[in-house]
Amino acid sequence: MNVQGISYEELAEEFGTPLYVYDAERLTGAVTGLRTALHPRLEVFYSLKANPNISVYATLRSGGARAEVSSLVELRTALTAGTPPEDVIFLGPGKSQRELTACLDAGVYAIVCESFDELDDIERLAAERGQRQRVLLRVNPALAISGSRLTMGGKPRQFGIDEEQVLAAGDLTARYRHADVAGVHVYLGTRILDAEVVGKNTRYILDLAERVAAATGIRLDAVDIGGGLGVPYFDGEEELAAADVADQLNPLLDKFAGAHPETRLIMESGRYLAGGAGTYVFRVRYVKESMGERFAVADGGTHHHMAAVGIGSFVKRNFPAELLTERPTGEVGPWNVTGPLCTPNDSVLKRAELPALRPGDLVGLRNSGAYGPTASPGLFLSHGYPAEVLVRAGRAHLVRERDQPDDLLRPQRLISPTDETAATAETAEGEQP
Amino acid sequence: MNVQGISYEELAEEFGTPLYVYDAERLTGAVTGLRTALHPRLEVFYSLKANPNISVYATLRSGGARAEVSSLVELRTALTAGTPPEDVIFLGPGKSQRELTACLDAGVYAIVCESFDELDDIERLAAERGQRQRVLLRVNPALAISGSRLTMGGKPRQFGIDEEQVLAAGDLTARYRHADVAGVHVYLGTRILDAEVVGKNTRYILDLAERVAAATGIRLDAVDIGGGLGVPYFDGEEELAAADVADQLNPLLDKFAGAHPETRLIMESGRYLAGGAGTYVFRVRYVKESMGERFAVADGGTHHHMAAVGIGSFVKRNFPAELLTERPTGEVGPWNVTGPLCTPNDSVLKRAELPALRPGDLVGLRNSGAYGPTASPGLFLSHGYPAEVLVRAGRAHLVRERDQPDDLLRPQRLISPTDETAATAETAEGEQP
Repeated sequence: MNVQGISYEELAEEFGTPLYVYDAERLTGAVTGLRTALHPRLEVFYSLKANPNISVYATLRSGGARAEVSSLVELRTALTAGTPPEDVIFLGPGKSQRELTACLDAGVYAIVCESFDELDDIERLAAERGQRQRVLLRVNPALAISGSRLTMGGKPRQFGIDEEQVLAAGDLTARYRHADVAGVHVYLGTRILDAEVVGKNTRYILDLAERVAAATGIRLDAVDIGGGLGVPYFDGEEELAAADVADQLNPLLDKFAGAHPETRLIMESGRYLAGGAGTYVFRVRYVKESMGERFAVADGGTHHHMAAVGIGSFVKRNFPAELLTERPTGEVGPWNVTGPLCTPNDSVLKRAELPALRPGDLVGLRNSGAYGPTASPGLFLSHGYPAEVLVRAGRAHLVRERDQPDDLLRPQRLISPTDETAATAETAEGEQP
Repeated sequence: MNVQGISYEELAEEFGTPLYVYDAERLTGAVTGLRTALHPRLEVFYSLKANPNISVYATLRSGGARAEVSSLVELRTALTAGTPPEDVIFLGPGKSQRELTACLDAGVYAIVCESFDELDDIERLAAERGQRQRVLLRVNPALAISGSRLTMGGKPRQFGIDEEQVLAAGDLTARYRHADVAGVHVYLGTRILDAEVVGKNTRYILDLAERVAAATGIRLDAVDIGGGLGVPYFDGEEELAAADVADQLNPLLDKFAGAHPETRLIMESGRYLAGGAGTYVFRVRYVKESMGERFAVADGGTHHHMAAVGIGSFVKRNFPAELLTERPTGEVGPWNVTGPLCTPNDSVLKRAELPALRPGDLVGLRNSGAYGPTASPGLFLSHGYPAEVLVRAGRAHLVRERDQPDDLLRPQRLISPTDETAATAETAEGEQP
């Protein structure tokens, strides 16, 4: 088993385990595949929340992805990687004043605004600076469209402004002079593996955008149709083909683009772009049997890959897993793979069909490039976050250093219970293990 | 609302939000309360996994707690806080060689061993160093005892060695010369709020320890009866009184202690000692209504307090919550409190009865001192881990610094897609927001 000719064993030896490995060719392939298939007017914005590693993002950007960010650090990541501000949008239900100010400092293409109170904040902050800032209104749709794993419309939500409220808001262009409301954002669901659902969502959103523009008088500089393209994780799930998505979307986009020649059409994608490119690699430490079941206790666990515990389901389902060590293997059978944490919930794989495992074996969880370490409790049991490696053009690059014990102790202060002196947790440790 | 006379508003202003606040008096009160009520021979070991902050641990230690650790960093924390090695035990199903070596370096009181293969590893490592290391065997009990929220016996598990296998192992004293097997550890469940269940578990464990000693010939230098004492989180749950636990345990412990005058009796406790002392404090940013429901979008969320999403239950239940801002309040009604993350799962409170919330309000989640930030995905959306403050003797001490943007960017490397030069993610950012 290898990535671009480098065996996982080599990677594990060089960078240690547990480890996330990303394949740069799969990253660029995912973004160029989507861009090539979809309507030329549709711009793909990468949702950094899926995997905010700066080199993962820079790789996707080299394939033509722009940036959808949701925090100060994600914004800084996009800019540091060289993204021009006009290719950055900032989104999130509870932005801080510091985040809004950073958007104005950078001059991002648009702030996606999620409430009228936030719109007032943007108006005030932009006015104070004599600036004008483009805003897209996030609309919470009145109707749900089924078919996604986590449906977002038709329900009370912390996101956006209810469709009904937006349509009843009257003329927005006169009311805001510094917050330049000029577009619409709608997000209808996530983990969608059915192209027809993406089509239905988009049809609804493009129609809604026109209704909003008509009701409120705003320009449509941009319409963000959300995204939610999924990646297959579990048995019975199949890959979503870019061509199928294109078949559904392109006619809709073509018609809308024709009617709105100046409007930027935006699709967000996080999981779909990054998911397939990543493998979580860990090593088996112990093999044991308990009450008739076989367990492999590994150095990797759910503190680095929380999605493995269960995602959108109350029944444990297994991520696609493979033995990465190259050796003769015996019969395949059911294995429980667990991590180093002291909780039964640290179950990485439950009765997964794998060759007989041995201590030292490398195991990989596939399709783990999105919502991996940063979506997991990496400080649990004080193990720290894993190393991350990007393989590009046949070379492996460390793109995130493994947390060392000092990294976890450094931010802590020891307040001695007997005196008032504070010490760094790492100061007194010279001779400690 | 205040902690030892310091208002939460003062703490929020000094340290910012979101914030974890720990009350040192409640920490020492919990440990001394338990120690006073329970049999004098029972030693209470604090499970650092519940809250590994070094000052939280040092406070509990000042009340007489010893240390149960499960990783290199937890071991280092215990030692840096001044714990003598004879008051440290190390536990965990997948210990690394580095962790085992650190145990031998420190000369911890005991390694709790979870498989025969691990026992072989300890034997080999100790032999190489000409050392003898005390080991407690962790036994996976053949029977489950109901009544805890997460029952550990009677099931195939990654933890310990099946009771049946231990009892069939024959004489262990001759087989291991450097791994000094001299005790038993059993953990039967967690989040127990019924003293009778603790009693039943302990009766089973003490009996099992004697059966193991008889079958394998080992000494009982120590018997670790686990713990699992809970903290009430949800409606209908009631506090577990130390006196009730004592009523159940003390007669059993007294009898066992009399029969084994040299045996150390160990109880582990994490949640029970730290849980009640902590409050997660956050500020409301926006208030909105969506389809008839009221939402407060806050700066704190489930990336710092994952347990709030749901703990041991598929139905959302709310942690005890309070408005901490002191002001005249109106009618109480149902509020959804959500965090800054771009996912509907970032639901902190669902239809919780609270006074009408306003932007700027401070809200606190109580009983949040255990399994808080370190058990949560603090890097999600790149927000970073929150500050933690310990209030002792009427003074507030920062015991964990809030993550700054640079702290998240520092471990990352930007591999430019066009050349092979690597740069730190934070290098080029001087003028960036």
